[in-house]
Amino acid sequence: MTTPRKIIIDTDPGQDDAVAILLALASPEDIEVLGVTTVAGNVPLDLTTRNARIVCELAGKPETRIFAGCDAPLARPLVTAEHVHGKTGLDGPVLPEPTMPVADQHAVDFIIDTLRAEAAGSVTLCPLGPLTNIATALQKAPDIASRIAEIVLMGGAYFEVGNITPTAEFNIYVDPEAAKLVFACGAPITVMPLDVTHKALVTKPRNDAFRALGTPVGQAVAEMTDFFERFDKEKYGSLGAPLHDPCVTAYVIAPDLFKGRHINVEIETASDLTLGMTVADWWRVTDRAPNATFMGSIDADGFFALLTERLGRL
Amino acid sequence: MTTPRKIIIDTDPGQDDAVAILLALASPEDIEVLGVTTVAGNVPLDLTTRNARIVCELAGKPETRIFAGCDAPLARPLVTAEHVHGKTGLDGPVLPEPTMPVADQHAVDFIIDTLRAEAAGSVTLCPLGPLTNIATALQKAPDIASRIAEIVLMGGAYFEVGNITPTAEFNIYVDPEAAKLVFACGAPITVMPLDVTHKALVTKPRNDAFRALGTPVGQAVAEMTDFFERFDKEKYGSLGAPLHDPCVTAYVIAPDLFKGRHINVEIETASDLTLGMTVADWWRVTDRAPNATFMGSIDADGFFALLTERLGRL
Amino acid sequence: MTTPRKIIIDTDPGQDDAVAILLALASPEDIEVLGVTTVAGNVPLDLTTRNARIVCELAGKPETRIFAGCDAPLARPLVTAEHVHGKTGLDGPVLPEPTMPVADQHAVDFIIDTLRAEAAGSVTLCPLGPLTNIATALQKAPDIASRIAEIVLMGGAYFEVGNITPTAEFNIYVDPEAAKLVFACGAPITVMPLDVTHKALVTKPRNDAFRALGTPVGQAVAEMTDFFERFDKEKYGSLGAPLHDPCVTAYVIAPDLFKGRHINVEIETASDLTLGMTVADWWRVTDRAPNATFMGSIDADGFFALLTERLGRL
Amino acid sequence: MTTPRKIIIDTDPGQDDAVAILLALASPEDIEVLGVTTVAGNVPLDLTTRNARIVCELAGKPETRIFAGCDAPLARPLVTAEHVHGKTGLDGPVLPEPTMPVADQHAVDFIIDTLRAEAAGSVTLCPLGPLTNIATALQKAPDIASRIAEIVLMGGAYFEVGNITPTAEFNIYVDPEAAKLVFACGAPITVMPLDVTHKALVTKPRNDAFRALGTPVGQAVAEMTDFFERFDKEKYGSLGAPLHDPCVTAYVIAPDLFKGRHINVEIETASDLTLGMTVADWWRVTDRAPNATFMGSIDADGFFALLTERLGRL
Repeated sequence: MTTPRKIIIDTDPGQDDAVAILLALASPEDIEVLGVTTVAGNVPLDLTTRNARIVCELAGKPETRIFAGCDAPLARPLVTAEHVHGKTGLDGPVLPEPTMPVADQHAVDFIIDTLRAEAAGSVTLCPLGPLTNIATALQKAPDIASRIAEIVLMGGAYFEVGNITPTAEFNIYVDPEAAKLVFACGAPITVMPLDVTHKALVTKPRNDAFRALGTPVGQAVAEMTDFFERFDKEKYGSLGAPLHDPCVTAYVIAPDLFKGRHINVEIETASDLTLGMTVADWWRVTDRAPNATFMGSIDADGFFALLTERLGRL
Repeated sequence: MTTPRKIIIDTDPGQDDAVAILLALASPEDIEVLGVTTVAGNVPLDLTTRNARIVCELAGKPETRIFAGCDAPLARPLVTAEHVHGKTGLDGPVLPEPTMPVADQHAVDFIIDTLRAEAAGSVTLCPLGPLTNIATALQKAPDIASRIAEIVLMGGAYFEVGNITPTAEFNIYVDPEAAKLVFACGAPITVMPLDVTHKALVTKPRNDAFRALGTPVGQAVAEMTDFFERFDKEKYGSLGAPLHDPCVTAYVIAPDLFKGRHINVEIETASDLTLGMTVADWWRVTDRAPNATFMGSIDADGFFALLTERLGRL
Repeated sequence: MTTPRKIIIDTDPGQDDAVAILLALASPEDIEVLGVTTVAGNVPLDLTTRNARIVCELAGKPETRIFAGCDAPLARPLVTAEHVHGKTGLDGPVLPEPTMPVADQHAVDFIIDTLRAEAAGSVTLCPLGPLTNIATALQKAPDIASRIAEIVLMGGAYFEVGNITPTAEFNIYVDPEAAKLVFACGAPITVMPLDVTHKALVTKPRNDAFRALGTPVGQAVAEMTDFFERFDKEKYGSLGAPLHDPCVTAYVIAPDLFKGRHINVEIETASDLTLGMTVADWWRVTDRAPNATFMGSIDADGFFALLTERLGRL
Repeated sequence: MTTPRKIIIDTDPGQDDAVAILLALASPEDIEVLGVTTVAGNVPLDLTTRNARIVCELAGKPETRIFAGCDAPLARPLVTAEHVHGKTGLDGPVLPEPTMPVADQHAVDFIIDTLRAEAAGSVTLCPLGPLTNIATALQKAPDIASRIAEIVLMGGAYFEVGNITPTAEFNIYVDPEAAKLVFACGAPITVMPLDVTHKALVTKPRNDAFRALGTPVGQAVAEMTDFFERFDKEKYGSLGAPLHDPCVTAYVIAPDLFKGRHINVEIETASDLTLGMTVADWWRVTDRAPNATFMGSIDADGFFALLTERLGRL
């Protein structure tokens, strides 16, 4: 039996963030969640911190440590996504107000201290939102870059183009300067872009399977997905909601579900027109050095099988 | 019976430009070629002008008027594509040196004079290369913009990303400032991007059909395609060469072969990283006004049926 | 008798920062220093915080509250200026290690809380270094913008061009994104650019006057200036060190020493070549709305008379 | 006795261009004008070509060869300056319509052919307007760069900032892409920026001296200057009109009138805010290689003495 991987989930929940967290908390044989750090993104920091607590309580894990982090991008005003996630960020199910505490320490300091305290190369960062906390930690403590096992992040788009502008995905667009710092930090980076997550669609049979679990978690996930899918169905005419963020925690558990390329990925920060684009050298037409594994495909059936099985345990 | 559409073909042949010209010259009931103007692009101006003459002679139309145009992009050194098209730009078949003349007039002046002399709204421009000639004409004579029936051009990419850089297609990348001027000119614009042309692949059966015509034209087209496809097969692992430019002249003959959206398309000129990208607002997420019909799909079988039938007439 | 103006000094000492702080602390009838907040800039945060404490003790004001702030720019790695200020940032005089405490609260929170607690329009911010703390406070608590009496800052250059690059002054260059946020915040802004501070040169007679005060403060200021002037003398062949930052606190005491224009000032963040430039519309050739009073001249004799008289009190 | 220097004057007259041309034509022992090439700038090409002819006839040199060139910048719509120069570009004196011919050849081709026909290193280019013609020639015939003796141009600004925007001088702003190409071409470049030309002011006594020549040329120059100075007097409150362009031809005759530095000068083309700025590394704070001699000061009395004496000969 292998040791579970130690991870820090950095997140701005968001319905799909919620499912990603639930998947991690349901998988103790594969994942040890050292802490959940929150950041402003889909909704402001107050709400993302509240939502992280709701999700941990829903999972029956109120002992999970939660740290509030940065409440605004490095160099720009915050852009949020209530048009996708609803006013609370977690619209859909009716869930109780959380009672579990938030830790005193700032998320950025928790990330730094943890990376310094744990063995080098043993902690994986799982950012599910804008990269503000991670970039701030790297700026404050450049020594941690070499201690990170891997950064597995949801963000960016190449063939699937953008969702917030014609060329940019939301997480990167919200804080492009943070993304630029992270992609240049030298740590191993694995990217789950829209190219992957738009292939992880919750079709009706898949959502029925969540509901059929017959548990509060299954019910809540089904209702969150029902809400969440309205946006993509209207915009793209797609078959269901893309489950963006759970791709990150699924990869930590079962990396073989995903295929990608180790290539160069640069972040556009110089032009308003293409701001926040992840310029991926997929066809290797430049001589820029590879700095990330950019995923391009997913075994969607395997992914949903894993997800349903694990959620059923909670 | 309808009157044929009057067009000016602006081109930098290139094997696929050659096929586009042949298709136009083979279709007098649909197209009247007022002139062929040449521009530096795939290879330098001397060679593109030579190649245009070779193609017109191959078509048995040495009376076609050919005008040499700009030999460098508006604001940048020329980038060429011998790695795709070979040293002459028309590598593949062995064809005789041309003897037909080049007109004295500069291509830019021919374009301006023709648009002013013909009835307003009666002349369509068909650019198959960098947009230097068209932009220069628009700058020199802004009055012609409102007299153009339509600009049908091969260039750009959105979902199919770039071919010369991770984000830019060759024709636009070579002269992005020219493209910016053209896309802002106000005339109706129809774009054949890589999104379309990468779906117009010359598979083996399709190339066999060209060869089976049993004519010098069929033979030459088959040999040009044999040469041309080497690049894409190696790079993308695709089934055959994309016939980029013939999409333009096929659209003039049979517009129903193509489907697209009338949207905003902006050209990136501010950032080196994304230089020459055609930022297409396919999902209409911005409030920028539509300025082009950006094609996204093609009836490839219908396209090749048309092409083979018409080439067979020459 | 008027009430003294309440100010927060935000600083990265630096010899000239030190003199600015001494001037404020020596002028209780004009200035009430609510706190001194430190930021990374001339040297890293550890050193600027240390230096702020040294200066307050030198002034005989160990009760001054000092708050450590941001240790890195918003979106870029820190650039420092040891080539100007020496390894400690305060090279020149020999001064004792400080013993006074640093407050527990983060500088950004102190700024926010103070602006909210004091009467609206009663607190002036005096930034002497990169604008990271001020920008972070404005991002975290946008409500404070309308409560700021005035932001009087040292930074930028127009006719006097740049000192760290051909177009950028150090404070703005180090954190251009922060500067952009501050200049767009809507609060009244008064700028002391190099255009002013390069006219506030410590010539030999002026430095002799400091030394002649016969006090530890006078001695230390003379020695700091001796050290500091080496850089400008070598580079510009000037007559002495420019006393940049004391212009800020002198303005709070005696605004009539300075003349400027209320104009539009934009910060360049889009181009590497001109990064961090303060583009001042001095001749009002654009239609951009004024957002700052950009100073252009100083009564240098009056300034040094004030400075010497006040320093003599400590 | 030395041989006169062979020059081509590239110009968009403009009152000050007119004086520059008159100075050259009045100095056959120092200057041989091989031709005058016109470009769109202060006013459209039709008018600049007309004005060049008026000036040559005023000088009594109708045999001068004049070539019309580019009528629009490389990559942008033309911006003109009627607010400075009046509707005709040469407002002020009443001068007869010209009758001398314009050569058939395009200015760009004349420049190329001349540089190839004359001995390498024997021809100096004197651009007085936007650099469109020169850049186009360099793009069309890169071999000519190494044959140019020197490019002495009026354009740019550093300490004197901009005149058309807060950071850009008119000639460079109108066609920044052309300027970028010229400054990168490798030929020796001497720049007369606003830093110099704003020190060449036609005060009342100096203009009286022109008028006192008692010749049609003296009278016309005085009237042109009367008109021209209105703009600068109103804007800057200066003592008189800056004679920008005559600095170029004066330098060819008497280079010792000017002092400058051999430094790196880059042209900003990436940012709208600072578009067309000549970023001069005057203090050599970068490691970019010098590519131009950027003038900073002028012996104004010597300059006006030369100018008055020479104009008196016509």
